[in-house]
Amino acid sequence: MKHKNDSRHRNISMMMDLYEMTMANGYYLTGNKDKRVAFDVFYRNNPEGGGFSIFAGLEQVLDYLEHMHFDPEDIEYLRSLNLFDEGFLKYLADFRFRGDVYAFREGSVMYPGEPILTIVGNLIETQMVETEILAQINHQSLIATKARRIVRAAGSRPVSDFGARRAHNNDAAIYGARAAYIGGVVGTATVAAGQYFDIPVGGTMAHSWVMYYDDELAAFREFARLYPDNCILLIDTYDVLKSGLPNAIKIFEEMRASGVKSKNYGIRIDSGDLAYLTKKTRARLDEAGFEDAKIVISNSLDEYTITSILSQGGQVNSFGVGERMITSKTDPVFGAVYKMCAVENDGVMMPRIKVSEVIEKVTNPGLKEVYRIYDENGRATAELIAKKGEEINLSSPDEFIDTDRPWKVRHFQKCTAKKLQTMAMRGGKRIDDKPSVQDIAAFVKEQLSNEIWDEEQRFENPHKHFMDMTPEYYKMKMGMLSKEV
Amino acid sequence: MKHKNDSRHRNISMMMDLYEMTMANGYYLTGNKDKRVAFDVFYRNNPEGGGFSIFAGLEQVLDYLEHMHFDPEDIEYLRSLNLFDEGFLKYLADFRFRGDVYAFREGSVMYPGEPILTIVGNLIETQMVETEILAQINHQSLIATKARRIVRAAGSRPVSDFGARRAHNNDAAIYGARAAYIGGVVGTATVAAGQYFDIPVGGTMAHSWVMYYDDELAAFREFARLYPDNCILLIDTYDVLKSGLPNAIKIFEEMRASGVKSKNYGIRIDSGDLAYLTKKTRARLDEAGFEDAKIVISNSLDEYTITSILSQGGQVNSFGVGERMITSKTDPVFGAVYKMCAVENDGVMMPRIKVSEVIEKVTNPGLKEVYRIYDENGRATAELIAKKGEEINLSSPDEFIDTDRPWKVRHFQKCTAKKLQTMAMRGGKRIDDKPSVQDIAAFVKEQLSNEIWDEEQRFENPHKHFMDMTPEYYKMKMGMLSKEV
Repeated sequence: MKHKNDSRHRNISMMMDLYEMTMANGYYLTGNKDKRVAFDVFYRNNPEGGGFSIFAGLEQVLDYLEHMHFDPEDIEYLRSLNLFDEGFLKYLADFRFRGDVYAFREGSVMYPGEPILTIVGNLIETQMVETEILAQINHQSLIATKARRIVRAAGSRPVSDFGARRAHNNDAAIYGARAAYIGGVVGTATVAAGQYFDIPVGGTMAHSWVMYYDDELAAFREFARLYPDNCILLIDTYDVLKSGLPNAIKIFEEMRASGVKSKNYGIRIDSGDLAYLTKKTRARLDEAGFEDAKIVISNSLDEYTITSILSQGGQVNSFGVGERMITSKTDPVFGAVYKMCAVENDGVMMPRIKVSEVIEKVTNPGLKEVYRIYDENGRATAELIAKKGEEINLSSPDEFIDTDRPWKVRHFQKCTAKKLQTMAMRGGKRIDDKPSVQDIAAFVKEQLSNEIWDEEQRFENPHKHFMDMTPEYYKMKMGMLSKEV
Repeated sequence: MKHKNDSRHRNISMMMDLYEMTMANGYYLTGNKDKRVAFDVFYRNNPEGGGFSIFAGLEQVLDYLEHMHFDPEDIEYLRSLNLFDEGFLKYLADFRFRGDVYAFREGSVMYPGEPILTIVGNLIETQMVETEILAQINHQSLIATKARRIVRAAGSRPVSDFGARRAHNNDAAIYGARAAYIGGVVGTATVAAGQYFDIPVGGTMAHSWVMYYDDELAAFREFARLYPDNCILLIDTYDVLKSGLPNAIKIFEEMRASGVKSKNYGIRIDSGDLAYLTKKTRARLDEAGFEDAKIVISNSLDEYTITSILSQGGQVNSFGVGERMITSKTDPVFGAVYKMCAVENDGVMMPRIKVSEVIEKVTNPGLKEVYRIYDENGRATAELIAKKGEEINLSSPDEFIDTDRPWKVRHFQKCTAKKLQTMAMRGGKRIDDKPSVQDIAAFVKEQLSNEIWDEEQRFENPHKHFMDMTPEYYKMKMGMLSKEV
């Protein structure tokens, strides 16, 4: 029985690295399969030297965990590898994920080093889900974070996702559109993403529409007749200033003459010197009395080119952003990792630490709680990591340790603290209703408007968010480190 | 009826840009829906300034075209957009792709500007498939091309794909593993890719295996007992030289003492100064009499870091390559485009050209044939573009035009020519049996060994493959350009 590998069937439960399976088989054979452990998901660096990232992909992680199972064809394939014990394969055939999941709310602003997701469960179930959890969170957080940067550069002008054709395959296009929407774009051209997530879909015309007709003017005229209320004409098939623009203006004049009042009309330019061409076209459109005609641009846009075009006085109403957002071209890897932090021993979760050769690869051991600390004005000033269950009292003059500068201590008086992880799944069952993508996107906007310092939002040398620990947590970590090294 | 958007159901027929649908609706309404047209897929630049690229993804394109259809829930979603005519929606409900497809063989070495795929069919079916065709070919060609570079840098040492967790979601991991295998890696860690494509799967252990046990030695001992024949111990959880290596050697000594002959044993290092650490560990392993112990390295590898590590005398038996291959990190966008090249008029396919502002965006008009020209030794010396149906006679002293240097003419005496496009689909039905991924990978190797100049394969300033046209084709293109501009 071969797996049906095509565009119509899928079971992503086999989206894992083989070593997860060999380790799980090992835990099964050594009688450790029911041992309770905890893994944290965290990341080490913000893409492009940014001040923070946006957490996205949780919804797909929970859906995956809830439905994870192995089909008979999966078991048969695993058997064919001659690596696994028959008892283990039988165990897999009946397997369902029954662990607990604690997570940041999807759309949360997040910072390096903090556990955005914690999975507590038996050794086998927690180990096998590593790859899929990371792939979802890494991909969607990457694109949401990139989209946030591009949307910031565009200022008040709307940004749309035009990237599907250059995405790294279907899921990258579809979940990428979802993530970009969470990061602040107003819509996508990708129909499947609109359908799945109720994201607004939009689009203009392709060069092929113009090329099909014998001449550009006829192509424009036909389009305007069919879509008077969404009449954005692509004017760079032959020559923007000598052909495309004069023909577009002719059509707009015909529409005006025949009394058509379009809700949305204008031009799109997809090549050439966009700063120069938008200034030229704006002037000529205005001259012809079409001040409300929109200018849409596309072609290799990102936060850097958008900033450059606008700083040159480029006249743009909206941006269609393709390859550079959907691949996060200038930094296409989000590096969240999945590390064991605790192992149960006689009913107690004992902390575990990974040391390694590189300082930034040292993990934060044990079960923990992450708090975001807000000042009197509701601005997020620091993160605070505590032992799970440890009492935090911000009203007393407690001292906290800045992990980057451990010789410094910090007080959080007149501050409030919010726990960032909440329980999202208990025993393999989801706790809350699925939020809409709209709610997640609104939550991102709200944080950026009200909570996150602008000094962290800028691109150049953003302020580094303070990462603090309670003295008790810090002492525990240092104690483990000095023992191990 | 909402689309089942989860990890278990999929119909990628809706993977398209909205403008394809609005244009198709327009063609339907204007009575053009049965007009026959042709589109070419081609790309403009090789990633990373390379000398060529590897064509991958054809199998998934053909599968998609063969099964493309719209489910009732798809039609209902499209209706909800209030953009489409009811007659058009009915047309979609019965829609199947019935066009013809001409394509390069999957795995072909390819060069900028040549049509690797040509779709001939009615206006609607050819327009609607643009996004999915491009997304598949762009993604898989990107990763196959990147993998080829990494495999070249590794020389005779095997390279495996370890990238799933940093891929841009599931499809990027799974089809990326397929593409990497086509590009020359020996296997993947991604279980689903092994299952779908019969690619060898492999893997070692994670840090969590070591962290679960109370000490590293116990973790290694248990693993060696379970997997004596695939015993690659990960030695950087605490300290490579002070802890991991001595513990690994202790285990290898125990195996030797108890008479275990392992088929595959050794160490993996995943952090730190890999050049330095591999030299140190190799020396100590050899000293202890384990000359056949393998050294596997991973962590941010690509053709650049591998070249650097090997040039420093790094002692490596094989490479596990993750994020930098599966995302093609240093150049993550493959830019193939889909452009109309001909429109039927009175039974004749009339050429169409796109001019635009940028020279490299000018298209090659009309139906055409691409030949690869081989010299007496079977080396590929040039590509030759001719009009479809045009007679080519390499034995006569014909002159051909170098498109980069049109003042030059070229003769191809003592050469042979091979047509690169063959018919892959007729009226929506596949013609040939599906090739195995193994066959495709072997075809890549064969071309690299026997046909492609090493001067094109190197990374620095590779020789630029000659792109020639027959005088007749060139005259036609120039004639169209001078008319349009």
